[in-house]
Amino acid sequence: MKTDIEIAQSVHLQPITNVVEKLGIDFDDLELYGKYKAKLTFDKIKAVEENAPGKLVLVTAINPTPAGEGKSTITIGLADALNKIGKKTMIAIREPSLGPVMGIKGGAAGGGYAQVLPMEDINLHFTGDMHAITTANNALSALIDNHLHQGNELGIDQRRIIWKRVVDLNDRALRHVTVGLGSPVNGIPREDGFDITVASEIMAILCLATDMEDLKERLANIVIGYRFDRSPVYVRDLEVQGALALILKEAIKPNLVQTIYGTPAFVHGGPFANIAHGCNSVLATSTALRLADYTITEAGFGADLGAEKFLDIKTPNLPTSPDAVVIVATIRALKMNGGVAKDALNQENVEAVKAGFANLARHVENMRKYGVPVVVAINEFITDTENEIAILRDLCAAIDVPVALASVWANGADGGLDLAETLVKTIDSTPANYKRLYDNNLTIEEKITKIAREIYRADKVIFEKKAKTQIAQMVKNDWDNLPICMAKTQYSFSDDPKLLGAPTGFDITIRELVPKLGAGFIVALTGNVMTMPGLPKTPAALNMDVAADGTALGLF
Amino acid sequence: MKTDIEIAQSVHLQPITNVVEKLGIDFDDLELYGKYKAKLTFDKIKAVEENAPGKLVLVTAINPTPAGEGKSTITIGLADALNKIGKKTMIAIREPSLGPVMGIKGGAAGGGYAQVLPMEDINLHFTGDMHAITTANNALSALIDNHLHQGNELGIDQRRIIWKRVVDLNDRALRHVTVGLGSPVNGIPREDGFDITVASEIMAILCLATDMEDLKERLANIVIGYRFDRSPVYVRDLEVQGALALILKEAIKPNLVQTIYGTPAFVHGGPFANIAHGCNSVLATSTALRLADYTITEAGFGADLGAEKFLDIKTPNLPTSPDAVVIVATIRALKMNGGVAKDALNQENVEAVKAGFANLARHVENMRKYGVPVVVAINEFITDTENEIAILRDLCAAIDVPVALASVWANGADGGLDLAETLVKTIDSTPANYKRLYDNNLTIEEKITKIAREIYRADKVIFEKKAKTQIAQMVKNDWDNLPICMAKTQYSFSDDPKLLGAPTGFDITIRELVPKLGAGFIVALTGNVMTMPGLPKTPAALNMDVAADGTALGLF
Repeated sequence: MKTDIEIAQSVHLQPITNVVEKLGIDFDDLELYGKYKAKLTFDKIKAVEENAPGKLVLVTAINPTPAGEGKSTITIGLADALNKIGKKTMIAIREPSLGPVMGIKGGAAGGGYAQVLPMEDINLHFTGDMHAITTANNALSALIDNHLHQGNELGIDQRRIIWKRVVDLNDRALRHVTVGLGSPVNGIPREDGFDITVASEIMAILCLATDMEDLKERLANIVIGYRFDRSPVYVRDLEVQGALALILKEAIKPNLVQTIYGTPAFVHGGPFANIAHGCNSVLATSTALRLADYTITEAGFGADLGAEKFLDIKTPNLPTSPDAVVIVATIRALKMNGGVAKDALNQENVEAVKAGFANLARHVENMRKYGVPVVVAINEFITDTENEIAILRDLCAAIDVPVALASVWANGADGGLDLAETLVKTIDSTPANYKRLYDNNLTIEEKITKIAREIYRADKVIFEKKAKTQIAQMVKNDWDNLPICMAKTQYSFSDDPKLLGAPTGFDITIRELVPKLGAGFIVALTGNVMTMPGLPKTPAALNMDVAADGTALGLF
Repeated sequence: MKTDIEIAQSVHLQPITNVVEKLGIDFDDLELYGKYKAKLTFDKIKAVEENAPGKLVLVTAINPTPAGEGKSTITIGLADALNKIGKKTMIAIREPSLGPVMGIKGGAAGGGYAQVLPMEDINLHFTGDMHAITTANNALSALIDNHLHQGNELGIDQRRIIWKRVVDLNDRALRHVTVGLGSPVNGIPREDGFDITVASEIMAILCLATDMEDLKERLANIVIGYRFDRSPVYVRDLEVQGALALILKEAIKPNLVQTIYGTPAFVHGGPFANIAHGCNSVLATSTALRLADYTITEAGFGADLGAEKFLDIKTPNLPTSPDAVVIVATIRALKMNGGVAKDALNQENVEAVKAGFANLARHVENMRKYGVPVVVAINEFITDTENEIAILRDLCAAIDVPVALASVWANGADGGLDLAETLVKTIDSTPANYKRLYDNNLTIEEKITKIAREIYRADKVIFEKKAKTQIAQMVKNDWDNLPICMAKTQYSFSDDPKLLGAPTGFDITIRELVPKLGAGFIVALTGNVMTMPGLPKTPAALNMDVAADGTALGLF
């Protein structure tokens, strides 16, 4: 069997200029990065702003399991299939971080015959967006430390700086550091830490900004820490939002690439789906909507985290709301949700499919609360049995949700035709009537409680003392009318990663809140969220190489 | 008067594809980064390898002073003038670091009407080379710390790791840090520090590598630290040279841009000129030599540091050696070398020109030791007087060195015609007979002493105890047949920055030696060398902004 990189390197790519011609994009609308990657110019983004948006399809999933669901693969394969049945379709998905690439074998550009290409570039430096974000983030850190060193005119309390540095690598040794050591000429000593770049608030900002002015405004609003009197210090107090925006002036432009089947794809931005909202950029999705009849986009993790945030945080910034939500599941993952261990997944287990279906059913119900029609996509595996598939079809019928099998990993566009047709039929027959889950004018406690009860199905929310103090402070700072970005385990509806399926009878505990004024939301943490991964005992880097002619080897 | 960025933005750029057509470079030989920047493909680099090299001209300078010499400006203007008089000419210069851009107003892409463009891009992210180097450097750090954390099979002594992290920013707070703090899951606590990216050994390696295999070999040879028994640990012991080369696979390809006058220029690589060799990449210079009749290149700082390293470290990796050396000076800088204070430079002072000429004369004499003809270029300033220029011409005549005035900053190509003609005449009439200053088979002490006595004119070299111990260790490790890379103040021939002119009667003290086995040289430190600059009280970042349409504002 061919590996992903072997499949990718066997494809004859078209120049990106040809791929986007059918969307009405000319050579002069592009800033090429090699022959197969390009950024779209601001002029073109502006020029199509008045176009009526096409249909928007959000791809999400059940709670992730170690069995794997293949959400990106389905997103890409579905778009390829839609193009094949004559619908002018674009993809808008996230770009991967280099950190995990060096750590664990496995890319983030789809898989098998459903990939965006050139996958080596997309998984390495791509068009430099991550590097620009890293640089802007760390320039701000350097400017903060320089401000302290040069006399601290703003009276920043160095113990209460919440802005951390970042690198786009998995590097556990940088999680907790002390800086400014060694001598008075080396600045003011203080504790600090590094997150991975995708966890930077600047990544979330880049993905929510609607244009350059909005970007600058959001950067200016970042809270970097507090004064000795606990009043907040903003980037605008340091007057460096212009410089940060300048560093990001290319990164904000959406990147264009192609799938194996030549479907044009925006691959742009990639914030975390726990401490941030987990979706590709608003600019990419908005522009795709104005260029194509169908835009297929994706949200991080399961629907309880990613889709909730897509619908409550990202959608209000888009020119339209989703016309359908596709929920991806696999028979294997349903079985895991039904209690089967990973090493027993290859055996038929109809009862486990039934039990695990509770997880899928609850996500379907949740998505319907937003007034959007739902389609279930089953990402086929060779180990799926006829009996298992039959019971799943029955269960879907019972809750009246259309279901389609997809084998895009193995069969590419052809493997997605059923799903594409089911989706088009659903959209054509069931008009969406989008509404948000909560009103931003509710209190912070009310908003969190609404998400926890209606999406997670918790009995109640427990706010720890620290969280209560922080909420009071946020009310005082007039920050309480922002949406909530929940940071919770992706593995369960609850805040306990071990409670699979559709748990009930649990509480959600809010330990801490973090203001992300630039992104425009308040993060509510239910536990410790890992914002800097580590490398495994045998990092994937050990297998990597490059041939004398520059060909990437051993990447995936 | 127009600023550099105003001049730059007023120029109508040609597509880079048109600029390089006359060199025989087609669209398919390029990897475009937007319309005005490109990387040259490996295939094209290989395809021209058999071409006979053209003439090579090295531009260097007297010891730098706060008055400014304008070496890059002369390099660019000279090339423009050579093209104007019908010589097919290319430029090969270094690319700037983002760190200083954020700190102190002033770019590194020439100035006035002698600039490489687009200067905003070149001074910001350009084609991402710096980011790739940062990432490769820090991936190695993460892999080292992960190795310690996962059991330390190689037995690395965490107190003796010499490999540091880097950022491409001026950030004094990162000079000295502790990492791995907070909990056992965060790795092994140890002291570390960050250099600026251009100080990374990987930058030096990228600039000396002749192809991908050589790059990998050099990466494998990096010494990252020592075991408890003091034996060295190499990157090859960690088996990650393949991954590091993969991260650098685009960065190693030379970048093509144009000057205001459409002269094609390689702008590629930019190592420090103290702890590294301070020249653009071997690949860029070699390829320029094979594409053009004249290649104008540049070395860092004054001729005692930059040109010495160009001639002793870089040249042996080139297909040819310099046909001429241009030494840049200004009347103002000569006056400073003659004892005049910065605030008195606007007054005529013929005696000071005479006194300061000693500095220039010694550099001329030094360069002649390499068997290469020398031309003096005087970068004109409006404050230069006729008497000052007359005496300078007399002094140059007395030591038989051709001299030409150049006003390329104000007048572009026209301002460089005299210099171009003087240079061509010199090359045509005086064949070069290049020889290195020292043989690599001399001992480390002998090589250092040779540089110190013949170039700096020191009486003797004092090796401190630490340096002696390190030399003994290097002999034991079989590292003593490498060339020497001197790290010394750029402001003086001596190791005391206050001794201007042509000092005598001083000693050079070697405090420490650092093995750079990947780069392939031993660094000899005469004092503390700053490898991480800080930001000033009012950083240039405060003036930067970007317009709604993406235009850079306030950059320079």
